[in-house]
Amino acid sequence: MSDSLVLQLAKDLLSRKSVTPEDAGCQQMIIERLEGLGFTIETMVFEDTTNLWARRGTTAPVFCFAGHTDVVPVGKIEDWDTDPFVPTVIDGYLYGRGAADMKGSIASFLVAVENFINANPNHQGSIALLITSDEEGPFINGTTRVIDTLEARNEKIDWCIVGEPSSTNKVGDIVKNGRRGSLTGDIVVKGIQGHVAYPHLADNPIHKLAPALTELSQVVWDQGNEYFPATTLQITDIRSGAGASNIVPGEATCQFNLRYSTELTADLIKFRIEGIFAKHGLNYDISWVHSGQPFLTEPGNLLNAITDSIENVCGYPSELSTSGGTSDGRFIAPTGAQVVELGPVNATIHKVNECVKIADIEQLAEIYEQTLVKLLAQ
Amino acid sequence: MSDSLVLQLAKDLLSRKSVTPEDAGCQQMIIERLEGLGFTIETMVFEDTTNLWARRGTTAPVFCFAGHTDVVPVGKIEDWDTDPFVPTVIDGYLYGRGAADMKGSIASFLVAVENFINANPNHQGSIALLITSDEEGPFINGTTRVIDTLEARNEKIDWCIVGEPSSTNKVGDIVKNGRRGSLTGDIVVKGIQGHVAYPHLADNPIHKLAPALTELSQVVWDQGNEYFPATTLQITDIRSGAGASNIVPGEATCQFNLRYSTELTADLIKFRIEGIFAKHGLNYDISWVHSGQPFLTEPGNLLNAITDSIENVCGYPSELSTSGGTSDGRFIAPTGAQVVELGPVNATIHKVNECVKIADIEQLAEIYEQTLVKLLAQ
Ligand SMILES: [Zn+2]
Ligand SMILES: [Zn+2]
Repeated sequence: MSDSLVLQLAKDLLSRKSVTPEDAGCQQMIIERLEGLGFTIETMVFEDTTNLWARRGTTAPVFCFAGHTDVVPVGKIEDWDTDPFVPTVIDGYLYGRGAADMKGSIASFLVAVENFINANPNHQGSIALLITSDEEGPFINGTTRVIDTLEARNEKIDWCIVGEPSSTNKVGDIVKNGRRGSLTGDIVVKGIQGHVAYPHLADNPIHKLAPALTELSQVVWDQGNEYFPATTLQITDIRSGAGASNIVPGEATCQFNLRYSTELTADLIKFRIEGIFAKHGLNYDISWVHSGQPFLTEPGNLLNAITDSIENVCGYPSELSTSGGTSDGRFIAPTGAQVVELGPVNATIHKVNECVKIADIEQLAEIYEQTLVKLLAQ
Repeated sequence: MSDSLVLQLAKDLLSRKSVTPEDAGCQQMIIERLEGLGFTIETMVFEDTTNLWARRGTTAPVFCFAGHTDVVPVGKIEDWDTDPFVPTVIDGYLYGRGAADMKGSIASFLVAVENFINANPNHQGSIALLITSDEEGPFINGTTRVIDTLEARNEKIDWCIVGEPSSTNKVGDIVKNGRRGSLTGDIVVKGIQGHVAYPHLADNPIHKLAPALTELSQVVWDQGNEYFPATTLQITDIRSGAGASNIVPGEATCQFNLRYSTELTADLIKFRIEGIFAKHGLNYDISWVHSGQPFLTEPGNLLNAITDSIENVCGYPSELSTSGGTSDGRFIAPTGAQVVELGPVNATIHKVNECVKIADIEQLAEIYEQTLVKLLAQ
């Protein structure tokens, strides 16, 4: 039996060493397929990052597949059973770095787009692809800048499927219809350095920080809501002192990160946290990094089309979820687009021996295609 | 006016670059002076450290002057007004690294010993000097090993003056008749590393440690007593995390140090602290370094002789104190010796432009000599 087109394309992408921010020719391969289908292609290069915006049609509504060609580093190569950049099929699974996150999804939506256009050359609205090679890295020159460019010329996406691996046990079991926000605080607490034998002449910043961190780690931020789990805070870094047992350190630094629901805003969180630090009498500086507002796509045209297609293709219903880390959906949703993440099972992503079930990416291509049919077929 | 003998000797010692563990010939100079006075000299070399044990007489009681020829590094040499290894007299003060801590004291007790022996060649008991070049450093090859050697052959010190700069505003105003104990704990708290988006799969060691440190920093250990200030604890170091705002760290380390009074023992302190860690559910390893038990010399022959001599020479009374850091007295006191620290004003020690008032080290020589007279004169 010869390889399906989805498997052929996935293998082609996996054989390219596109560790962030490298694209390694993945986008050129995609461009060559899209050109024959009547897409207008724009390559947008920002600093070290190559991005692709391709659109077929000039009218609304605009349906967009979003994804990334970059992959995370392979880690310890000696822990892999296969060469991570030589796509290898074993027992119905395709192995290689990026198989699940997310070159498999790209292959699936390319095939879905080809099949849909062949069957529906005069579809409604527009079909678009937004591809970056900067999703796994600093994400400053990727999707966010493509969206800035589109916004500047008032080009809008109505519906977007991000091909991130949303599934947990079997393909399509989980669809992500939102993501929590992410807010990071970096605090520098100032004390007075001194000798441990004369503590009255010093002011130990660790002694000041400990009760504040105790309170911070115990706050109940919210109860979440219908779509979101409760907001959580984790202290991710703390350091103070130079390891000398006779010196009271003069300064302590600490970093913490919150994943927050739509029940809160970044400003509300900052206000509460600064209140806690003030209550504990800290003399401090703080800097905030707000790397994503929470977003939510409520049931509507897009979600209904996707969940119906999953039920048709897979024979089981899917569940909605907003848990997990951030994705580039956070850059697309604020423009007003409905954004949903749907991709293969995520069990092996970012790990050694990353793989995807070949049947899953083939089913995914069908789910994507049926979704296009429901939304854009004439 | 020509230099006094005390000043001559102090200058000689200060011109030698004896940064720990270097002795730079200081002990050889001392040996040459003592040999002419009938001392039996032993040079004890342990690893990188040269030590001197000199004794005149074979009978008890043994009176010992203890001190160190090593000095701390000069710090930023451009901040000094004079060359730290060129002894320089300005306005009645002698400048140079080690002037106050404690080459000045060594000069003073050498002159006191010479004068006393010249006047009392057939004194009672024995006069000894215990000199190390390892007091400011790791203090593992200095006084502690000389004491081990003496103990092994059952050689006992009855009275000891350590020449550390005990004085605060004027020479002899403070005599240290004890020191607090010093106990350091290093703790490693184990958690489970994870992603901040999935905190239920992780176990954040900082979240566990913060409440334990809050309690630790707020414990009232004791009220001190007649001779000792209250026991204090300072957290001197803490570190966890790798600065990545999306990773829950798997481990946290922390160091703390206690300066404790004779109301407590190291074992009691360990027991209470391990109880606090257990109460907060920490999964941890701890290692302890006990760098000195507290010691106390209550008023008796030695203290009375010293305080009377100060009042005679200076015209004002002295105060007893046990505050401040550790000294080599902690190694001598456990043998049963009465140990007292008396030296010049400590305002400039370990700083740039270290200096000592020349009149002070000359008075100190008189105080030391009178003390010898009171205790050992025929
Ligand atoms: Zn991804
Ligand atoms: Zn000293």
